[in-house]
Amino acid sequence: MNAVTASIVTIGDELLIGQTIDTNSAWIAQRMNELGISINRRVAVGDTIAAITQALDEEMKNCDILFLTGGLGPTADDITKPLLCDYFGGTLIVNQDVVTHLHDLFAARKRFITARNLKQAEVPDVCEVLFNKAGTAPGMWFEKNGKVVIALPGVPSEMKHIMSVVALPKIAAQYTTEKLIHKHIFTAGEGESMIADKLEEIESRLPEYIKLAYLPDAGFVRLRLTGKSKQPELLETEITYFQREIVHILGSIVVATDSLPLEFLLIQALEGTGKTISTAESCTGGGIGSAITNVPGSSTFYMGGVVAYSNEVKEHVLGVQKNTIVEYGAVSEQTVTEMAIGIQSQLKTNYAVAVSGVLGPNGGTERVKVGTVWMAFANETNVVTKEFKFHYDRERNKDMAIKNALLNLLRLVQGKLG
Amino acid sequence: MNAVTASIVTIGDELLIGQTIDTNSAWIAQRMNELGISINRRVAVGDTIAAITQALDEEMKNCDILFLTGGLGPTADDITKPLLCDYFGGTLIVNQDVVTHLHDLFAARKRFITARNLKQAEVPDVCEVLFNKAGTAPGMWFEKNGKVVIALPGVPSEMKHIMSVVALPKIAAQYTTEKLIHKHIFTAGEGESMIADKLEEIESRLPEYIKLAYLPDAGFVRLRLTGKSKQPELLETEITYFQREIVHILGSIVVATDSLPLEFLLIQALEGTGKTISTAESCTGGGIGSAITNVPGSSTFYMGGVVAYSNEVKEHVLGVQKNTIVEYGAVSEQTVTEMAIGIQSQLKTNYAVAVSGVLGPNGGTERVKVGTVWMAFANETNVVTKEFKFHYDRERNKDMAIKNALLNLLRLVQGKLG
Repeated sequence: MNAVTASIVTIGDELLIGQTIDTNSAWIAQRMNELGISINRRVAVGDTIAAITQALDEEMKNCDILFLTGGLGPTADDITKPLLCDYFGGTLIVNQDVVTHLHDLFAARKRFITARNLKQAEVPDVCEVLFNKAGTAPGMWFEKNGKVVIALPGVPSEMKHIMSVVALPKIAAQYTTEKLIHKHIFTAGEGESMIADKLEEIESRLPEYIKLAYLPDAGFVRLRLTGKSKQPELLETEITYFQREIVHILGSIVVATDSLPLEFLLIQALEGTGKTISTAESCTGGGIGSAITNVPGSSTFYMGGVVAYSNEVKEHVLGVQKNTIVEYGAVSEQTVTEMAIGIQSQLKTNYAVAVSGVLGPNGGTERVKVGTVWMAFANETNVVTKEFKFHYDRERNKDMAIKNALLNLLRLVQGKLG
Repeated sequence: MNAVTASIVTIGDELLIGQTIDTNSAWIAQRMNELGISINRRVAVGDTIAAITQALDEEMKNCDILFLTGGLGPTADDITKPLLCDYFGGTLIVNQDVVTHLHDLFAARKRFITARNLKQAEVPDVCEVLFNKAGTAPGMWFEKNGKVVIALPGVPSEMKHIMSVVALPKIAAQYTTEKLIHKHIFTAGEGESMIADKLEEIESRLPEYIKLAYLPDAGFVRLRLTGKSKQPELLETEITYFQREIVHILGSIVVATDSLPLEFLLIQALEGTGKTISTAESCTGGGIGSAITNVPGSSTFYMGGVVAYSNEVKEHVLGVQKNTIVEYGAVSEQTVTEMAIGIQSQLKTNYAVAVSGVLGPNGGTERVKVGTVWMAFANETNVVTKEFKFHYDRERNKDMAIKNALLNLLRLVQGKLG
């Protein structure tokens, strides 16, 4: 059997006017990858019959499995269901299981059910209904000319629920495939070009079924080796060999051999140590704490923190000396040092990070230019400070500040921050 | 002249394996909309010559302007530049302006410049170079058969810089178009179906050049009226009329007539009042503060907050009574009330919000189930509490908690929270 491929078509004007950022496609792509199914293409089209039909026609040629997301809601701008019904030559019929589910759902949420809601129970008689316990619009599974078309609601939680509970097991049962293996190397401290130069020789030795990709992000570079084979054990051995060799060549700039976000690496590093962390954030406004608490189970290690956006909070809650701020400024090595010591002692944690900076677009001065961020990292015996200069807009400067804080916290916990 | 249309092709395996979420497309789409140019389709393809060529061939048929993003970096996985050079029948030549810029950039960042970096200065002789002051890979503008192809680097800050400074003015100069007008109505408190029933009559009266779309998000429903016309003044009048009528029909569930995120609406509402806010966050981990501080100028109104992830922090920093937590639990009306009063008095702010909940997947009990979130909203005379039950995964529960906190803070500032 040849490699199985999939395409994703996302439907909705909101995707074309830039009102919504598509996160569904990335999630579906990850799940397909785990099953060894490659995504060939992703296409976003508007809510018109012509655009959806064109995408269906074209993508059916490009893949074995076609995912459609969006366009299944109860309102008049959703035209996908009748279109699919026509496309596959069916008629809309009422599915009694869905009717019962809708009544139960609305009763549980103490909401009145309308005729419009009940229309969600109408499904084409030529599809298999993918029951949606997480919402009102059922998913649909069509087959035609050996191809599968899977239509899913656009609400991420509902799409994920239907996929996880119903569609993924069905896909796994129907397709046995070549296995895809990804291996990662997460680096910090050198640019893409410099790394590429160091890896030139090893890249020339990679077999054609193993690819190396460079993914720069917030000043870090993630490397990804991707291999494809019908002999997964052999591939695993071979790709792990190359991963190790790259780790060896790159040496101290390697942070992790994992594709996890930094906050997950940080919590992983804390596990089993019995140590705790706290945060004192000015310019990042709580973004570091927010990232850390995205990790389930982070409450064992993260005690909390203070968002010291104003100088009064830096003084009165964190105990920064008024003189320090007057003499050195709120964005200074001295202030972040006192912030880190303040939060560490108040929350009685082993480690602490403090951040203060000017993210822009305004607020810069002659002495402290926009993009300057000071950070302090405290353990039980020492405080290490670092100054960063970011050259981007407010949003990206903040993202870079959060990620660099997490990276250096990770280094601190690993005992590698110096 | 007919309506001008554009397509966006994003290039990169990382988009197909779900490692990267595409935010560039939404940004480009927003900018095109402002110029009255509709995006027909967005396509994501992998780093192969076949896939990129297929997308070029197909999308050149679908649009007047084709944006390509990604695939322009300095490493071996980037094949787009030579491909475009072939596609448009050119040769790669060295651009001396880019060479000079690269030397300056690396000198300023105190980094050593490599031959690989300098390859970025090679551009096809059949394109106009779109100079990239924000990074190393220049953009490129090609024309063929009356169509324009604009190739841009995938790093968002570089793409945005080239677009804003060079490409957008060039597009605006080259195309005069029908005007697109969007009007928004942001509602909270009723579901999509219920709203659709109330708007059925007015929807039937909309002319065919004005569309109404429903965009549910985190328990809110945003409505968008989109009109297209060569007579923008008339369209503006007409679409504003329908917007007002919808606001009138929907009454108290209308929060704003704006497409701005909630944190921007909140800061807008605070402007000119001289009032300040603070946050006490448990389960949201700093996410509310982080959202508020995304707004430039928020430091005038937002003093800061405490991330009270552990009970010790709730007691020792916020002054919640130990008894309150023992008797009622950390996730309770009593605890969030004391948290809100604690942060409000410590940071001396006019308003305060406090949040405590169980987002999952673990941590639920018989009394406090996963998805339960208590919030308290304090002004100078009163504390209003609310209990929420979210039914999703950790990520979405957190997003809903943050957005509902911001919504109710906005209502509080507007004097409409009861």
